[in-house]
Amino acid sequence: MSQIYNFSAGPAMLPVDVLHRAQQDLCNWNSMGVSVMEISHRSEAFMEIVKQAEQNLRELLKIPDNYKILFCHGGARGQFSALPLNLFQADETVDYIVGGYWAKSAAQEAAKYCMVNEIDIRLEKSAYLSMQPMEEWSLTTKAKYLHYCPNETIDGIAIHTLPDFAADKIVIADYSSAILSQPLDVSRFGVIYAGAQKNIGPAGITLVIIRQDLLGRARKTTPSILDYTILAKNDSMYNTPPTFAWYLSGMVFKWLKQQGGLQEIARRNQEKARLLYDVIDNSQFYINRVDPINRSLMNVPFQMAKPNLDSQFIQAAEQQGLLFLKGHKAAGGMRASIYNAMPLAGVQKLVNFMIDFEQRNK
Amino acid sequence: MSQIYNFSAGPAMLPVDVLHRAQQDLCNWNSMGVSVMEISHRSEAFMEIVKQAEQNLRELLKIPDNYKILFCHGGARGQFSALPLNLFQADETVDYIVGGYWAKSAAQEAAKYCMVNEIDIRLEKSAYLSMQPMEEWSLTTKAKYLHYCPNETIDGIAIHTLPDFAADKIVIADYSSAILSQPLDVSRFGVIYAGAQKNIGPAGITLVIIRQDLLGRARKTTPSILDYTILAKNDSMYNTPPTFAWYLSGMVFKWLKQQGGLQEIARRNQEKARLLYDVIDNSQFYINRVDPINRSLMNVPFQMAKPNLDSQFIQAAEQQGLLFLKGHKAAGGMRASIYNAMPLAGVQKLVNFMIDFEQRNK
Repeated sequence: MSQIYNFSAGPAMLPVDVLHRAQQDLCNWNSMGVSVMEISHRSEAFMEIVKQAEQNLRELLKIPDNYKILFCHGGARGQFSALPLNLFQADETVDYIVGGYWAKSAAQEAAKYCMVNEIDIRLEKSAYLSMQPMEEWSLTTKAKYLHYCPNETIDGIAIHTLPDFAADKIVIADYSSAILSQPLDVSRFGVIYAGAQKNIGPAGITLVIIRQDLLGRARKTTPSILDYTILAKNDSMYNTPPTFAWYLSGMVFKWLKQQGGLQEIARRNQEKARLLYDVIDNSQFYINRVDPINRSLMNVPFQMAKPNLDSQFIQAAEQQGLLFLKGHKAAGGMRASIYNAMPLAGVQKLVNFMIDFEQRNK
Repeated sequence: MSQIYNFSAGPAMLPVDVLHRAQQDLCNWNSMGVSVMEISHRSEAFMEIVKQAEQNLRELLKIPDNYKILFCHGGARGQFSALPLNLFQADETVDYIVGGYWAKSAAQEAAKYCMVNEIDIRLEKSAYLSMQPMEEWSLTTKAKYLHYCPNETIDGIAIHTLPDFAADKIVIADYSSAILSQPLDVSRFGVIYAGAQKNIGPAGITLVIIRQDLLGRARKTTPSILDYTILAKNDSMYNTPPTFAWYLSGMVFKWLKQQGGLQEIARRNQEKARLLYDVIDNSQFYINRVDPINRSLMNVPFQMAKPNLDSQFIQAAEQQGLLFLKGHKAAGGMRASIYNAMPLAGVQKLVNFMIDFEQRNK
């Protein structure tokens, strides 16, 4: 079988080295004769994993000391509920910037618990996806909090600049599909959160980075497993955490450091994305319908001028070891998710295949 | 290194065969060239895992058709909140039988959302742990629901008979540490739930078996990831599930079937527990302080007549490959957790060690 490259949007590919190491150690971790998933989360050995994971993550993202790192159950959707339950008052208005499916879903869940001002910034001009520039967003003056999603996986549309009103508002971001893909000024945010299954680790664990002064405000009716204050007090061990996912996440953080950290990762991500967008833009055969200034570096959807060839494209790609290129059902066409773990060689192989497929079918 | 036996209370040991198979397939599952944790939960290949897991679980527990099986995020503690949010009215009184730490924790969390009648059935006579017989429990006549925990891991105390008022009350049980350890009449329950990390799989996934007529009652403020109705409607895929944990759970169900199903598993569990309790009872050196009719088959705590030897015992055991025998800090002494995955040979090795240790130290 030829070298496999996995373009799944999530659960997504993990770094090959991490997976191989996990395999090697699966039944005998740390020379203990047992699997890392068979030991107590409170054991010394597991606490060492936790400590190193936090240390490496703090280093990678330069997380200031006044931020607490939490590892939670429940995926990013759990955080859609946790945010209002932990931070917002029932009669408080919160600005939710909506640039796509995920931001919209977060806003809808929050509306169960507080007043939501949904600010839809999507400008859909015929088949062209673009966004209102930030200075035109109709923010609520009185809203203390602003929530947004910097990268939308389905449409492959992104907000690349940081919301520029950190002084006025506490900014909360769903970084699920872009976390650790480039350096980030954490100090500009109140809360950053991210489901693991794109750039961190396997599905089933969620990272929350929260400014410490935002703790201690949870409503009394917040389920304990979603209560940031309880989780912070217990160092994310209020209940048994998803230990294997935590362990793998820690290995990914270590791998990122070994690659040269987030500056180098960002450079590679830009190179991968440019390679792919260039082939699309230089062809009459492939189309990406996102405004270049809002194009995602993580998820690259593309259509063909002849959409009836979609399934042929996907099948032929699969035969060459280029997997999971089918677009989200809401978007159609193709989508290549090229998170941190995707090497340049994978994108190179994809674009070669695309050029060849175009030659054969134009 | 000698054969290792892992007596951890949880995350606990997995069946050796399951772990070896998972290791073998970790980087190349189903000949796909990728890991099972790198594929979409909505892919055909993963849906096949889900289907088989449900089928095998239904077969093992003979789950009637009018029960829905859910796989949730968040551990059993998530269910402590989910139960009242999904089932009980705010002004409704619910009977919570308290036989130990976990039942008490469930009652405390529920009290945030409804009226809780905590019925403490523990009878602590000097150093002897026993429980009120069921006919003496002071139940609330008007309470429609009754919650209990059939096996308490810390004290190793269990309620072996099914609450005998199924006609009057909807019985809800936290089966985290006893699920699948013996056949169970599911039809006697409204809801059975269980965190995975003892008898099902790795930490980070939770099984809920719910009678279908109990769906559709969630409060509007229930976080979506804890809303049984939403989860049921989406076949536990409302958000990305912990796919690797689900996969391993499915492999454990299959393994249980291969062992001969729950009748055979129950026979083995009884044999293992008898072996261990017999050694304890036949010695003046070891003590188990639980009323024999309430002794757990899963968690066997024991003390020594000379408690100053505890750390020596634990260390010497470790050197022989008998791991994680230290008791919970609230109970002290030792604890051997002997869930389904623990083979008879492990318990045999433990009792041989105990007899030898006694000889050398009495």
